[in-house]
Amino acid sequence: MTDHAETIRHYWDAAERRDWEGFAATLAPDVLYEVPQTRERVRGREAYVRFNAEFPGDWHVTVRRVVADAAGGVAWTDVAVGEERLTGLHFFTFDGDGLVRRVDDFWPEPYEPPPGRGHLVERF
Amino acid sequence: MTDHAETIRHYWDAAERRDWEGFAATLAPDVLYEVPQTRERVRGREAYVRFNAEFPGDWHVTVRRVVADAAGGVAWTDVAVGEERLTGLHFFTFDGDGLVRRVDDFWPEPYEPPPGRGHLVERF
Repeated sequence: MTDHAETIRHYWDAAERRDWEGFAATLAPDVLYEVPQTRERVRGREAYVRFNAEFPGDWHVTVRRVVADAAGGVAWTDVAVGEERLTGLHFFTFDGDGLVRRVDDFWPEPYEPPPGRGHLVERF
Repeated sequence: MTDHAETIRHYWDAAERRDWEGFAATLAPDVLYEVPQTRERVRGREAYVRFNAEFPGDWHVTVRRVVADAAGGVAWTDVAVGEERLTGLHFFTFDGDGLVRRVDDFWPEPYEPPPGRGHLVERF
């Protein structure tokens, strides 16, 4: 079995280094990318590499955690764009050759906790 | 090795059935729960069971995907609360006995896609 956790780390390492050839090498030709929160979709390796290569700003990615099994994997990343700090959650699905067939990206943002629950939680 | 994917499915199945004894049985006594988006934190099994048992509304959870390895796991869930539909992303860490030692919960919400990227994506 291909080591899916290792492939996910290669994917992010290549993106961080702007090594778009190495990044593309982790992807299946028909890779599908979706952002459920915005309903954005990108189809195919060439378009998906371009989508990343043209991402604006001086962004940097640190991989906080990777969980992977035989079918796929998940990465939790910290992304810095200038002074801005984002959390990225990335679900990967692989094909039989160990290439990334699908990525579902989430970008959860801070929000106010629901009212009436303060007796059940602390804040940090 | 304990099957962490199975434990995650038990956790959600017990929550859906309001089987709080079964739910508690998946948790370490000193389980720590955090929501990075709101900076909410709950410490300990008793407090965490109560946090869930007292969650308001007629909520129902469907597990869409589980990824797990030797250290932990992730669940992607669809949560319905009345007419409202939420996405839950839940990172689990386990102790040596296979009990849930830590949960990091994310609740990503829809947002508008960034401007100037329309030539790179489709919408679905």
